[in-house]
Amino acid sequence: MLHVGINGFGTIGKRVADAVRTQPDMTVAGVAKRSPNFEATIAHDRGYNLYAADGQAPFDGAGLTTAGTVHDMVEASDVVVDTTPGGVGATNASLYEEHDTPAIFQGGEDPDVADVSFNARANYDAAVGADTARVVSCNTTGLSRLLAPLRESYGVEKARITLVRRGGDPGQTSRGPINDTLPDPVEIPSHHGPDVQTVFPDLDIDTMGMKVPTTQMHTHSVNVTLDSEPTSEEVLDLLGRETRLFLVPETLGIDGAGKIKEYTRDAGRPRGDVWENCIWAESVTVEGRDLYLFQAIHQEADVVPENIDAVRALSERTASAEQSIERTNDALGVGRGLVQHEGEIRRAENVADD
Amino acid sequence: MLHVGINGFGTIGKRVADAVRTQPDMTVAGVAKRSPNFEATIAHDRGYNLYAADGQAPFDGAGLTTAGTVHDMVEASDVVVDTTPGGVGATNASLYEEHDTPAIFQGGEDPDVADVSFNARANYDAAVGADTARVVSCNTTGLSRLLAPLRESYGVEKARITLVRRGGDPGQTSRGPINDTLPDPVEIPSHHGPDVQTVFPDLDIDTMGMKVPTTQMHTHSVNVTLDSEPTSEEVLDLLGRETRLFLVPETLGIDGAGKIKEYTRDAGRPRGDVWENCIWAESVTVEGRDLYLFQAIHQEADVVPENIDAVRALSERTASAEQSIERTNDALGVGRGLVQHEGEIRRAENVADD
Repeated sequence: MLHVGINGFGTIGKRVADAVRTQPDMTVAGVAKRSPNFEATIAHDRGYNLYAADGQAPFDGAGLTTAGTVHDMVEASDVVVDTTPGGVGATNASLYEEHDTPAIFQGGEDPDVADVSFNARANYDAAVGADTARVVSCNTTGLSRLLAPLRESYGVEKARITLVRRGGDPGQTSRGPINDTLPDPVEIPSHHGPDVQTVFPDLDIDTMGMKVPTTQMHTHSVNVTLDSEPTSEEVLDLLGRETRLFLVPETLGIDGAGKIKEYTRDAGRPRGDVWENCIWAESVTVEGRDLYLFQAIHQEADVVPENIDAVRALSERTASAEQSIERTNDALGVGRGLVQHEGEIRRAENVADD
Repeated sequence: MLHVGINGFGTIGKRVADAVRTQPDMTVAGVAKRSPNFEATIAHDRGYNLYAADGQAPFDGAGLTTAGTVHDMVEASDVVVDTTPGGVGATNASLYEEHDTPAIFQGGEDPDVADVSFNARANYDAAVGADTARVVSCNTTGLSRLLAPLRESYGVEKARITLVRRGGDPGQTSRGPINDTLPDPVEIPSHHGPDVQTVFPDLDIDTMGMKVPTTQMHTHSVNVTLDSEPTSEEVLDLLGRETRLFLVPETLGIDGAGKIKEYTRDAGRPRGDVWENCIWAESVTVEGRDLYLFQAIHQEADVVPENIDAVRALSERTASAEQSIERTNDALGVGRGLVQHEGEIRRAENVADD
């Protein structure tokens, strides 16, 4: 049983903790937090050991018991997942080194914070036995999952992506824009392309980023020039076999992120989370060697299964990427409760035949 | 065991069906729907008998099996909850009469659609044994829950409420405003005041409505001139003892609807639903006989427990309002997972002493 500590219990940390709890081979060693806000009461209600990241006093004031300091948590953990705000993770690196505890950072940190930038589908093996890994950002995760099978099956000459990004998360009431569309960053390429190259160093990719007034999901307008000329149907079948890509069928009547998240809430997902890339099946179009599609990425959730796989990779206790991904998916419920694409149904039948 | 049919499986219907399923004395006889969209797949995945409201053909096309027509569902039901869009319910009234099946309508219908306009806290007994009841709208429900204890304890001279309403629900992508604040309706009083008077006929109340660009919750700016002069702390204690009012403590750091819903999602509520009025405790202020406070109302969810209570009232199988409310709350989880106000804690202790 792997004891996993989570430093930071905000948007990503609380989801990673709950995901760890679902895994048969992991348990939550504890969570570290700075302030006794509503998320601290959730940690308490879940029964997680709560550690004070910045002194005990604020928790005493709120009547919340802590189990010690963040140092105690790191010492009690086989692996730590650092989900502190972007840039803070790097300042914690020496803490994990001091305790000789393998550590996972998030995509808000610079790539040099860790030995490897990680995506389970693309480069799991690179992180096996490493001391540190950085789970790439939600957008880079979404792009890596899509590009990996395209590269393997068709080859990629060049990828060009426009990322229409949500302005903030639902609870981030101080973020904008309220009513604007911002080229953000205005420089081209945006940082997303180079970040995807931390996973695929030889990939030719240009990205452009914008921000719009929604808190729901990011939406990517994707163009990939392939080395070969598959049909749209062949691409749909290929993508439909990927366990972390959800092909949204036209019949569901889902026209945007609002209905995607209503669907996953209806399906009973924890927090309504969408762990999968959501690709509108109708949008998958091949013109010559140019593939086009739209995909929506839930910024709060898609990196959660990747963090679980990263824990297994660092711990060296799982035989392969496929084994870890399958175990993570099964325990967390990735793919579950969603209408299946024909390709997925075929995959399920093949598994049943094994 | 009460067999409850649900006509309409949209925002309210799907929540009522799931709530019926949690109750020890009720079961879902079936749900009727017009189109095979994502909500139809959810009904199918839940194992609800699906009835065609408008012909079988669209469901055949989507590969969804139906159990018959809406007539068959009404015949198989002890009580029907009509959750079709506002105004459509009235056109279904003859269907329920024809089958002699007691029926519950929603607040989008005119009051004369039913024998009684219903709120469990305010006038449960008026619906006991009636043929039809109309569960008042989300806003009227929120106001009735608040005004009932104030009237009982202090007397109400006059209520003045500004309702800052969400423009649409998260999945309603064709509704606005995108970027505006609309006096809506611009006439004063808005229809909300007269609707509250369907529950409290002798209440003096004026309401003003607006619409703003959010899909999260309605927020009410409340002024109630009382007949007596309690302190703010006395009002907090009174409201804290009400099971469907949640007093949001300052320590949680919750500044708006976004964080309220993040809290209930974190707590594991189905769909993140907020069944309770959310009253900011810091806002509860008494100046002379004038009480002021802010409360947020989850438009998709607060009428759900009221529908369950209305089913029991019409069926005459439960002894009292208190008994039904407690049973509904316990089975659904109303109040559960939220930090308690001192008043609620005292109430819980009193119950334990009984």
